[in-house]
Amino acid sequence: MSTLNETIKKIHGLDPKSMRLARERQDQLTKPQGSLGVLEELSIKMAGIQRQPIPEISKKVIIVMAGDHGVAAEGVSAFPQEVTPQMVANFAAGGAGINVLARHAGAEVRVVDMGVAVPLDIPGVIDRKVRPGTANMAEGPAMTRDQAIACLEAGIEMAEAAIADGADLLGTGDMGIANTTASSAILTVFSGAEMEHSVGRGTGIGADALELKKDVIRRAIRVNQPDKEDGIDVLSKVGGLEIGGLAGVMLGAAANRVPVIVDGFISGAAALVAASLCPDCRNYMIASHVSVEPGHKLILDQLALKPMLFMNMRLGEGTGAALASSLVDASCKVLAEMATFAEAGVSEKEEDRTEQGAGI
Amino acid sequence: MSTLNETIKKIHGLDPKSMRLARERQDQLTKPQGSLGVLEELSIKMAGIQRQPIPEISKKVIIVMAGDHGVAAEGVSAFPQEVTPQMVANFAAGGAGINVLARHAGAEVRVVDMGVAVPLDIPGVIDRKVRPGTANMAEGPAMTRDQAIACLEAGIEMAEAAIADGADLLGTGDMGIANTTASSAILTVFSGAEMEHSVGRGTGIGADALELKKDVIRRAIRVNQPDKEDGIDVLSKVGGLEIGGLAGVMLGAAANRVPVIVDGFISGAAALVAASLCPDCRNYMIASHVSVEPGHKLILDQLALKPMLFMNMRLGEGTGAALASSLVDASCKVLAEMATFAEAGVSEKEEDRTEQGAGI
Repeated sequence: MSTLNETIKKIHGLDPKSMRLARERQDQLTKPQGSLGVLEELSIKMAGIQRQPIPEISKKVIIVMAGDHGVAAEGVSAFPQEVTPQMVANFAAGGAGINVLARHAGAEVRVVDMGVAVPLDIPGVIDRKVRPGTANMAEGPAMTRDQAIACLEAGIEMAEAAIADGADLLGTGDMGIANTTASSAILTVFSGAEMEHSVGRGTGIGADALELKKDVIRRAIRVNQPDKEDGIDVLSKVGGLEIGGLAGVMLGAAANRVPVIVDGFISGAAALVAASLCPDCRNYMIASHVSVEPGHKLILDQLALKPMLFMNMRLGEGTGAALASSLVDASCKVLAEMATFAEAGVSEKEEDRTEQGAGI
Repeated sequence: MSTLNETIKKIHGLDPKSMRLARERQDQLTKPQGSLGVLEELSIKMAGIQRQPIPEISKKVIIVMAGDHGVAAEGVSAFPQEVTPQMVANFAAGGAGINVLARHAGAEVRVVDMGVAVPLDIPGVIDRKVRPGTANMAEGPAMTRDQAIACLEAGIEMAEAAIADGADLLGTGDMGIANTTASSAILTVFSGAEMEHSVGRGTGIGADALELKKDVIRRAIRVNQPDKEDGIDVLSKVGGLEIGGLAGVMLGAAANRVPVIVDGFISGAAALVAASLCPDCRNYMIASHVSVEPGHKLILDQLALKPMLFMNMRLGEGTGAALASSLVDASCKVLAEMATFAEAGVSEKEEDRTEQGAGI
C-alpha cells in the first residue's frame, strides 16, 4: 500500500474519554464554566488529539513550503516570480515575517522547497522539489497525478520527520508567487462558490488584474475539468506543489495524532484537499486567523473551523499559525495550571439563579 | 490642581513623526505593504505613543482591580459576593486564569483592592480600598463624588507606580461580583443603547435573572439620573470602585505615554469613563478581545477600538489583555526585526499591476 493510503488509514477520531475528563477539569477550575470560551474548547480538543486529559505542548514546528506556479505567466500576481526563491532565502536567513513571529512564539521554522522554479542552493532549506514549478493551469494540468501524490507524500514525510524530532504541535505556511490563484481555483472547484467570493487581490493586485485573475481561473477550470470528488485530481489540475505538500503535512499530523494549525488562505486550500481525501483529518486541524483574502472565510466554513484572530492579515508564510500557536499553548496551560474551586477555596455558582444547561 | 486634573492636562495626541517613520519602515519590510494588517497598525500606534520610530516593550504589567457592588444584594449575579475576596486570594496565590495567562505572556500581575466588601489581609494585594463595596445603586448613588475621584486617582497612582518600576505596556483586569451590572449601567447611560443590547448574562445567569438585572439597571438610572456629560457623575452613581480605579489606570497610562490594553466588558466600561473625562486618552488604548457579553462590542464601537481576538471569552480579570499583550509584543518585533527588501535582496512589487494607493 502506498504511503498516502497507509497514512489515511491511520487517521481516526478524537478520544472521547480524554475529552470528557478535560471538560470535567475545566468545569472545576476557578472561573464561571465556559468563560474562557475557545481556550477551553481548544484544550479539550487537544486532550482528544493527544489522548490525555491534560495535554501538553513541548515543541512547535512550523513547516513552510515553497513552490512556483506556471500560471504566474498570466500576470495574476503583483510580484515577479523571482520573489519566490528570494523569499526562501529570506526565510533561511531569518529575516521574514514568519521568522520573527515564530521566534516570538518559540516555534521552529522548517523551510521546504517543494517546487521553486529555479535551482536553489540555500543552506537550511530542505529539498523536496517535485518539479521546478507547476505548468500553467490555464492551459492544462498544473502537474501530473503522480506528481500530486509525490507532493502529498513529501508533506507526510516532513510532518513525520518533525514529529520524530519531538514536535507535538505543527503549523503550516506557504510561499509561492501566484499561489492565491491556485488556491482560489481549488476553493471554487470544491465549493462551487462564485468567483466574486472565492477570488481576491492576493498580494495586492488592482481591479483590472483581479478581473484577469478571475478569467484565468475560469479558463483553468474549463480546460482541466477537475473532479471535485477526487482531491488528487483537483490538486494535480489546479493546485500547487507547496499546496500538495501542505495537505500532506496535515494528513501526516492527523495520522500521528498531532494537532496542526492551518495558517491562512493557501494553507486553507491545502486543508480542503486534505479533508477531501480524509474528512476525519479535520479533527486535528486548528484554525488561526481569518485573512483579508475573501475566500478564506468560505474555506473555514467548508472545514467547519473557527478562526481566533481577526487581524486583517494576508501574508501567508505561516504568520497566522505562529501567532495562533501561542493561543494553543495558553489553552493547555489554563487546563494544567489553574486552581480548582476546591483547591482555591472559592465558592461555586448559586445554581438557582443560573441557566439550565448553560453552555458557552 | 488635583492629581486628576493634572493628569488629564498631560494627555496629548500621538507623535506623527515617529508614526510616519514607522510606516515608512513597515513599507520597506519584506512583505506586501499592509499584509500584516493590524500588526502593522499596532506597531505604528506604538511608535506614536512612545515617540520613537521603532517602539520596544521591556516590561508588561497587568493591573487587576477588585471591588464589591452593593447591587449584588438584588440577586443580579450567579455567584455570591464572598467570591470577590476568594478570587483576590486566588490571584495572590497565582491560581486564577489571569495568573496563568500573564505568566504565559511574560507579564507581571498587580492585584489592587479598590473596595472589596470585607477586610482583606492577603500578602501581595495592594490596599487602596476607597470604601468596603459600593452602596446599592438601585436605591441611590453607588458612591460619593469624592469617592469616585479617589478611585480615579488611586488608579492613576497605580499606573504611575508600575511605570516607575519600568512598565512600558499596561493591561487592565477586574474582579467584582455584580460588576457587569454596573458596567451595563455605565454603557446604557453613555450610549443610550437599549437594555437588550447593553445587558447580558455576566457569569452565566438564567433568563429570569437577566430580566431582573435589566429592571435593576433601569431602576438605578431612574433613581440616580446620572449626567452622561459628566463622567465622574456617571461613575459615582452607577459605577464601581474597581471600575473607577481602572479608568484611572487608563488616564495615568495616557498621561505618561504608555499604552494600555483594555481587557473585556468591565475594563471597557472603565474606558468609557476615562474617555468621557479625556477623549484623547483613547489614543493610548489597545483593544484585546471581544467578549460574549453583548454590550462589549457596543463599547468598542463607542471607543472606536477594534478587537483582535474572537474567542468567546467572558472571564474578565485581564485574561483578554494578557493574550493580546503577546500580539502587541509581536507587532513591535515585526517592525524591529524583519529584513527590508534591500537587506534581503528581494524584488519589490511590479507597480503596473497594482492598485493605486492600495491600503489594507
